[in-house]
Amino acid sequence: MLANNIEKTLQGSSAIRKMFEEGIRLKKERGEEAICDLTLGNPCLEPPKEVKDALTLLAQSTEKKQHQYMPNAGIQKTRSFIANELVKESNLPFTANHIIMCVGAGGGLNVVFKSLLNEKDTVVSPSPYFAEYRFYAQNYNASLVPVKTKPDFSLDLDGMAKAITAKTKIVLLNSPNNPTGAVYTSQELTDLGVLLRKKSDEYGVPITLLADEPYKEILYEGNVPCIFSYYENTVVVTSYSKSLALPAERIGYIAISPHHSFHKKLFDAACICTRILGFVNAPAFMQRLLPLVANIKVDLSLYKKNRDLLHQKLNEIGYLCSKPQGAFYLFIPIPRQVKESEFIQLAQKEGLLLVAGSAFGLEGYFRVAYCVEEEVIQRSITKFQNVWDQCTIKSS
Amino acid sequence: MLANNIEKTLQGSSAIRKMFEEGIRLKKERGEEAICDLTLGNPCLEPPKEVKDALTLLAQSTEKKQHQYMPNAGIQKTRSFIANELVKESNLPFTANHIIMCVGAGGGLNVVFKSLLNEKDTVVSPSPYFAEYRFYAQNYNASLVPVKTKPDFSLDLDGMAKAITAKTKIVLLNSPNNPTGAVYTSQELTDLGVLLRKKSDEYGVPITLLADEPYKEILYEGNVPCIFSYYENTVVVTSYSKSLALPAERIGYIAISPHHSFHKKLFDAACICTRILGFVNAPAFMQRLLPLVANIKVDLSLYKKNRDLLHQKLNEIGYLCSKPQGAFYLFIPIPRQVKESEFIQLAQKEGLLLVAGSAFGLEGYFRVAYCVEEEVIQRSITKFQNVWDQCTIKSS
Repeated sequence: MLANNIEKTLQGSSAIRKMFEEGIRLKKERGEEAICDLTLGNPCLEPPKEVKDALTLLAQSTEKKQHQYMPNAGIQKTRSFIANELVKESNLPFTANHIIMCVGAGGGLNVVFKSLLNEKDTVVSPSPYFAEYRFYAQNYNASLVPVKTKPDFSLDLDGMAKAITAKTKIVLLNSPNNPTGAVYTSQELTDLGVLLRKKSDEYGVPITLLADEPYKEILYEGNVPCIFSYYENTVVVTSYSKSLALPAERIGYIAISPHHSFHKKLFDAACICTRILGFVNAPAFMQRLLPLVANIKVDLSLYKKNRDLLHQKLNEIGYLCSKPQGAFYLFIPIPRQVKESEFIQLAQKEGLLLVAGSAFGLEGYFRVAYCVEEEVIQRSITKFQNVWDQCTIKSS
Repeated sequence: MLANNIEKTLQGSSAIRKMFEEGIRLKKERGEEAICDLTLGNPCLEPPKEVKDALTLLAQSTEKKQHQYMPNAGIQKTRSFIANELVKESNLPFTANHIIMCVGAGGGLNVVFKSLLNEKDTVVSPSPYFAEYRFYAQNYNASLVPVKTKPDFSLDLDGMAKAITAKTKIVLLNSPNNPTGAVYTSQELTDLGVLLRKKSDEYGVPITLLADEPYKEILYEGNVPCIFSYYENTVVVTSYSKSLALPAERIGYIAISPHHSFHKKLFDAACICTRILGFVNAPAFMQRLLPLVANIKVDLSLYKKNRDLLHQKLNEIGYLCSKPQGAFYLFIPIPRQVKESEFIQLAQKEGLLLVAGSAFGLEGYFRVAYCVEEEVIQRSITKFQNVWDQCTIKSS
């Protein structure tokens, strides 16, 4: 007697769950050290020392009212701090009144979706995409419309133009991208801005560009263009899950462009939605932490080493593995000789746990999460070779 | 271009917001000490010393992986700790597999609603009720069906029997109650259990009794009966917002009765809903806190003093003020001579900020939140007298 849609979701998610359960079973059976689990985007790094120090300072503080209810948008001081950071980055007149603290990026996306989406509206997003987006849209009786990216995972602007209709309220970007690691270029964003302005005019409804940017600080080369510069009706949702390695603390923010055509209303709506969705406010303790650890982020050298090693070795084996600038994922085509599910199972038998591309809306790929200890990556190479060899045998 | 329902909510909430804004204006104009703000259920108490000590301990801990993603249900150790507490209280075989940690009770209620409610389903709840319940039901395209309680705020079982239909998936109780402070008796709960069994049989659908119990530890006399003893299909949602004075930290739990007819499925659904609503998991730091502060709660003597003083003085003035056993609210009939809105405005002019009963679905009352410093309560007495006098003048 569950809700019908949840009953369906439970049944649907059983395939992925079976894989996880099989993984747990394998670890028990063969021992942890026989398994390379590259499925989860769960940072292996600890939070920087400065974060631990600041948490201690906060816990010992004798300041009163640290744990009391606050406005739904969050603590003024924290929101002003973030606004100032954004002014420096964007040159736009951000104030605390453009910032709503949220329960991680997942919480923030739900708040923006709830604020903007009517029944049957659409959210257009490049594919492959973070699997949760589909559920987030369904939560508000809307739907996700994926638009396949080009083979190099760059935006297909023509495809997006076709997908955007009068029902499209949100175009959702995730850069650096999960699962591909791709970073959209300034040129891509310029073209997207032109498209969104045109479509907004055509349909008489401002389309909001929603940028999900939890991986923005996880960057090995180049830079992530400041998205606010390309289109006025822009909202950024982000979290400190990756940059401070605090994913389970659920702390992030929503930033509404001061140039968004209804930014005041959207701010009010986001506050109300934060309340009525039951978040009420982002966890206070972590809100207080943020101004104390300005400019601090995790040391990326481990992730970079993992990426470089995997990229080199997998290409040597024969996989067509590109070298993304950001995030901690590789998204790699599965050798043509085998089906996706077959490949994932072959890898699993080898003790190599991967996620199938179809979980991200693009079949025929596998995702590697390399936010793990270096030794896991090193052990994985032989396994990747063995799986490759078995695929080759299959075809001969 | 907000979502239509949010646009409506924004407009609807503007009345309450105006009151709050007027309150802020008054405080600025006349000074904080001229105003008695009794509107918010925001505990004035600080968390107990043991909580602060435990937070310091946690911040200084060198244990790894404290801030990493975890299963959506939460940290195993914390869930086992809570299960053990519930075994002691209920004598039922609770384990960690009946407990899902949640982002405050508001988060937990949304997770249970999402798990159970189809479009057009109903949630039956005694009235007056916590105003957010209506929004929580609407989030899932369902609706709240309020059933007026008796004049002493006890359950009207006949009324509830009439309100429950084949569409009713949840009966929602809040005891001790916000806004009345009422605690439902063992007899009321026994009768409710009989009713729910009969209705579940009649419609062939198990109705879930959902108990929202964040005020359970805020009790001055007697006891709150263990709700799990009265009906098998019971779920409790609670938080540590009031008992540990940590409302802004958003930490609570969902406990599913081991005798619930589909408790395993409901557990799985609650995990999925925790994920797809964007909560992902309850804040890890506060989850770790809980087993360290077993049996600790705030000192209730201030609240009790406030309640007793208000009860005595308001009755002396002429208000018909009952003396509820729990929570930190009084819900008092407005003198018949004046309308509700008129009374609230008279009080506001006097510098006395109150919430109108209609905000809780029952017009003709006002709510007093007495979780404030004692001196605020003492100053409020003259103001209550002045408002009373003005009501009396009105009628003469």
